[in-house]
Amino acid sequence: MTLKNAFYAQSGGVTSVINASACGLIQTARLHSDKIGTVYAGLNGIIGALKEELIDTSLESDADIAALRFTPAGAFGSCRYKLKSLDANRAEYERLINVFKAHNIGYFFYNGGGDSQDTAHKVSQIGEQMGYPLTCIGIPKTVDNDLPITDNCAGFGSVAKYVAVSMREASFDVASMCATSTKVFVMEVMGRHAGWIAAAGALAADENHDIPLVILFPEVQFDSPKFLAAVDANVKQYGYCCVVVSEGVKNSDGQFLAEAGGKDAFGHAQLGGAAPVIANLIKENLGYKYHWAVADYLQRAARHIASKTDVEQAYAVGKAAIEFALAGKNAVMPTIIRLADAPYQWEIGSVDLKDVANVEKMMPPEFISADGFEITAACRAYLQPLIEGEDYPPYKKGLPDYVVLKKCLVAKKLPEFNV
Amino acid sequence: MTLKNAFYAQSGGVTSVINASACGLIQTARLHSDKIGTVYAGLNGIIGALKEELIDTSLESDADIAALRFTPAGAFGSCRYKLKSLDANRAEYERLINVFKAHNIGYFFYNGGGDSQDTAHKVSQIGEQMGYPLTCIGIPKTVDNDLPITDNCAGFGSVAKYVAVSMREASFDVASMCATSTKVFVMEVMGRHAGWIAAAGALAADENHDIPLVILFPEVQFDSPKFLAAVDANVKQYGYCCVVVSEGVKNSDGQFLAEAGGKDAFGHAQLGGAAPVIANLIKENLGYKYHWAVADYLQRAARHIASKTDVEQAYAVGKAAIEFALAGKNAVMPTIIRLADAPYQWEIGSVDLKDVANVEKMMPPEFISADGFEITAACRAYLQPLIEGEDYPPYKKGLPDYVVLKKCLVAKKLPEFNV
Repeated sequence: MTLKNAFYAQSGGVTSVINASACGLIQTARLHSDKIGTVYAGLNGIIGALKEELIDTSLESDADIAALRFTPAGAFGSCRYKLKSLDANRAEYERLINVFKAHNIGYFFYNGGGDSQDTAHKVSQIGEQMGYPLTCIGIPKTVDNDLPITDNCAGFGSVAKYVAVSMREASFDVASMCATSTKVFVMEVMGRHAGWIAAAGALAADENHDIPLVILFPEVQFDSPKFLAAVDANVKQYGYCCVVVSEGVKNSDGQFLAEAGGKDAFGHAQLGGAAPVIANLIKENLGYKYHWAVADYLQRAARHIASKTDVEQAYAVGKAAIEFALAGKNAVMPTIIRLADAPYQWEIGSVDLKDVANVEKMMPPEFISADGFEITAACRAYLQPLIEGEDYPPYKKGLPDYVVLKKCLVAKKLPEFNV
Repeated sequence: MTLKNAFYAQSGGVTSVINASACGLIQTARLHSDKIGTVYAGLNGIIGALKEELIDTSLESDADIAALRFTPAGAFGSCRYKLKSLDANRAEYERLINVFKAHNIGYFFYNGGGDSQDTAHKVSQIGEQMGYPLTCIGIPKTVDNDLPITDNCAGFGSVAKYVAVSMREASFDVASMCATSTKVFVMEVMGRHAGWIAAAGALAADENHDIPLVILFPEVQFDSPKFLAAVDANVKQYGYCCVVVSEGVKNSDGQFLAEAGGKDAFGHAQLGGAAPVIANLIKENLGYKYHWAVADYLQRAARHIASKTDVEQAYAVGKAAIEFALAGKNAVMPTIIRLADAPYQWEIGSVDLKDVANVEKMMPPEFISADGFEITAACRAYLQPLIEGEDYPPYKKGLPDYVVLKKCLVAKKLPEFNV
């Protein structure tokens, strides 16, 4: 009997450790070459499957696959492409199954966030309906940390560490010059809906580092006077204040601060940038000298400062995906189960895809302080272990020696399909 | 005979390695406690001397002084305060001398950029004029790398490494998603006058990493159509383009792009941010989806990714300052002399302060490509060794364990002085 091949795709916004999941998956598949055939990867995610653009990962060397563990972003390409419902676009699902049939693919591994888990679930359903046996496993990945059930998401710990480290460092800078220069520093971080990443900024302060911080969560409606009072109180007490603003913060009209209608020098609508909006508000109302930073992609690509915990968990969920498939599980996603906070202990669990799909996990109210500007002790206990440990990539000539794969495509067997 | 004490001050914008210079200076002074008395540090730089706010560094433990080597920003506080000319404000210079007299200070160490070297030079002149023997040594420090004569400046190598690492990482992110998402990524970096930091972004690409980059230097007047054509060509060839824009880039009217008159959502003048201006220009003219980042203080505070070469040089110029003083040199600054590019070899030299003061070293024309958007091979050979080597700080609970000093002030002996 010919072994069934596998298909792996990276989906949605990439992270600094999604390739560590790919590494765990491919290395584990190679260990079980008696049970699983070739692992194909979608060029640019699920679009690669629809267009029958399949990367033959068996042509990548063991060394290059091992290097995925320390290489950020999506080595096979990713995409933001959400398959519609089965009713709305059955053709796309059928195309997937046809491509899988043509290449003897019996395993579908989808590495992404909530939308992707939903897609993986739908693909498992259509496989059944079309009488094509297909094992579908989701692999959790999102910097936003907003998947339900799993204690945390692979990708989050590293962006959290980046934000906490960056804010600690910037706070040292501001503290050392605030007597005569910048008094308020604003850093904008990702998190369109959930404030997990912004919350991580609060870790910059600890018992040995008394840093005045104000956090703006998307879960908390922006209250300008209250915010300005909090900043002012910090400047008066400490001489300076650091602000972490989530890109998803909205004003009382429900508008994103970042898109509240500014015009740039050319008269064009100014898109993006909650940080400059907050900074100007401070300047106009409090008169303090400010600086602002927008980390943008730097935060989610920052493999150089990845959390060791996160790298290990990302690898583990990739490895578990293969192990689940070989154990006969289907339509599930590996989860991370927390056994203890300190010392931190975790293990891999499993959840049905139907229970994960399209549920967003926001910061619970008990993780946000009463004034809405800080995290609670419970939140700190949750976040702390996720940023622990360093896992440096190798360097060459002063820079991380990230791998670029060969990405050889297999010959197409089917007619073109328009995506 | 009582030993003469020393005064050390940090000046201007801080860096991730200015404390390494302080570490080199204080540790070396402690080794020569038979020749040099207490090292006092100015609280918040030269203002600390004027206000007689002197930190007694002898009260800091050896361990805490050693920790300065891996702690970013100004541990004693810094300031942007330029003493006027001797004619315009002789009282301030006389006050400095009076404070030095009162505390038996015979050595003045000033750790800063061009303005600070000028001040150190003037202080040495006034000391002579007032018949107060004072040894004045400048210690080079600037992320801008714009001091003359010295091959490079302590502080620059680390910001260069941060920019190169960040751009390499972000380019991997953009490359992996450009087929369906962001096609142009813009990162703004420091450098109001000189393009050294922007140039470092070009190191993200090398023989193993073919990354399409466009660099906007302050030395090159911004030419919008030419720039847009360069970006468009990269997107058409590679599928994406990365842009590094210096905050100091000016348009044809001589205005900073960052201050070209935009208004924010509140109708206020939008200050800062060349990156969003560039990004919008791309969106409006080429229609490509973009993202932008402004690294701001993150880049100059990023001790976590400091260049080992830079840390060693920063330490060495601090150490040399004491050695020069003890050898009887005066009104000089240690320099870094390059002996060879590859393998890189350097040694410490010396220059008279009068030859350093108020001279800015721009990128030479032969370091910028003919089209104005790239660096030349000569520039790469110059920059490459400066970012080499990693020098990680120790971590505690997932974060760099940076030191906060006690900063005990000595008792004042003089009347108040208004600064």
